[in-house]
Amino acid sequence: MHYLKREHSVYSFSKNHKPELHIKSGEKVVFQTYDCFTNQIQSEEDLVTSIDFSKVNPATGPVYIEEAQPGDILKVEIHDVKVRDWGVISTLPEIGVLIHRAETKTKIVEVENSLTVHFNDEISFDAAPMIGVIGCAPADEDVPCGLPGNHGGNIDNHVITKGSTVYLPVNVEGALFGLGDIHASMGDGEIGGTGVEISGEVETTISTIKGESIPRPLVETDDSWYTVASSDNTDRAIQIACEDMQDLLVKKWNLSPTDAYLLMSVAGDVQMCQCCKPSPIDVIARFRMPKIKNMPRLI
Amino acid sequence: MHYLKREHSVYSFSKNHKPELHIKSGEKVVFQTYDCFTNQIQSEEDLVTSIDFSKVNPATGPVYIEEAQPGDILKVEIHDVKVRDWGVISTLPEIGVLIHRAETKTKIVEVENSLTVHFNDEISFDAAPMIGVIGCAPADEDVPCGLPGNHGGNIDNHVITKGSTVYLPVNVEGALFGLGDIHASMGDGEIGGTGVEISGEVETTISTIKGESIPRPLVETDDSWYTVASSDNTDRAIQIACEDMQDLLVKKWNLSPTDAYLLMSVAGDVQMCQCCKPSPIDVIARFRMPKIKNMPRLI
Repeated sequence: MHYLKREHSVYSFSKNHKPELHIKSGEKVVFQTYDCFTNQIQSEEDLVTSIDFSKVNPATGPVYIEEAQPGDILKVEIHDVKVRDWGVISTLPEIGVLIHRAETKTKIVEVENSLTVHFNDEISFDAAPMIGVIGCAPADEDVPCGLPGNHGGNIDNHVITKGSTVYLPVNVEGALFGLGDIHASMGDGEIGGTGVEISGEVETTISTIKGESIPRPLVETDDSWYTVASSDNTDRAIQIACEDMQDLLVKKWNLSPTDAYLLMSVAGDVQMCQCCKPSPIDVIARFRMPKIKNMPRLI
Repeated sequence: MHYLKREHSVYSFSKNHKPELHIKSGEKVVFQTYDCFTNQIQSEEDLVTSIDFSKVNPATGPVYIEEAQPGDILKVEIHDVKVRDWGVISTLPEIGVLIHRAETKTKIVEVENSLTVHFNDEISFDAAPMIGVIGCAPADEDVPCGLPGNHGGNIDNHVITKGSTVYLPVNVEGALFGLGDIHASMGDGEIGGTGVEISGEVETTISTIKGESIPRPLVETDDSWYTVASSDNTDRAIQIACEDMQDLLVKKWNLSPTDAYLLMSVAGDVQMCQCCKPSPIDVIARFRMPKIKNMPRLI
């Protein structure tokens, strides 16, 4: 079991970063993480307008996986996501679906035992700890951790949580994997641009899959498969996620492209990871296909 | 208990339609419905390209509710949605997220006891009968039943099902309510433009709420509230659904607009009803706010 402290973190996914940890495929790693503001916000007086925005969305890592080669798939099993006892919610200036009807505000909320978020004296709801940033280094240019992409990154997908498995394309030798940006809770769409931003700890097993490739992240839960895609255009993000699922159903379930499409229309779901427009950040959509009895795995 | 046969149906929501049934607020009505093709497709040889497209999405009705006046809310409790034992799935030419990768095809599927859809010999999944078209006559121009709008109409929202309650704005005297276009199952987004299209029967209680208004449909389930909005632009449909929910949380939960926005970002979900682009039909989005213990109802 490896333990990687949060001081070992980066603000971009890059083939040029020096690994902070070397592991073999199949080993367990616990990642300690900062919150998305690198813990710069400590009270409701600290506004996002007053922090250093070059220090957002740190990913703990990168981790070099010895067997990982370009074209492989990195398999990351999430065994647990634990969070500290308070988190930060904030509006972001000029970003978000309702920013035209909101003020700049920081709100600190109590998070009880990683189980309950106390929004105020009256409103409490179940926590649902999840990982916002997760990815491998891209083959080409560095990508800031605040952005999503085919390599993963800031995909803000709330199904990436305890019990789920994330599959990522390996683009460079060793994969150079990292994760961070935990939320104690985040709504689908993350309409304001923040969830309950919080530091914590993520327990994983990381391994490589040879002989198979994927173009973009894929997530598996107990009952479903999810393709994930991002684009500046919402409709296009949805379309890419659908195309990826169609490709998988044609390949693994032996359906014609038309039958895969018909099945997806009646039994699968378009869902939003983040659609926080207006924003300079791409929209991230996912397509959910429920697991169906006796049908093969998609990966 | 009233029973309205499917021969009493219309292809538009219109203030000019003659009521097919008069009821008092609080009475039960069972609606028998055609499928969205007015049952024109009877085999896999019947393609959508060969049917009369002026006869799509019929709504059984309209029903005149004696107490309903413009500015009221119509409350429609859905007690049951039963479907026949087979349904139709189809691609639609030039419409849908993956139409560039699919052929024109009609597929007939067996639906067992309103419980299970048999897609083919290998693939079966749970049915989830739902109502695609539901609405009241608009105040102004007629709206074809195939289109969504503030009056309701073809909002293709799969949470409108057994056990849910739909709230609609009353725009004309008597409301002139109708419903149809049942699906044995439909994925969120309905990416191909059809669910498992099927005829059936819907059992409802219809009543009026005085002294309160809503701009667009609202849906209540056991655990959640949903605003529903449509627009030609996906981001704008999402934004309107969010604005409506923000307004409700400000009014009913006594939150500031900013706090409502923060709460929605961390605890509510943007979801898609239909995002079947490219298409001449508007995108329909919904925003889900979970019910929170001890907090007031939103309507």
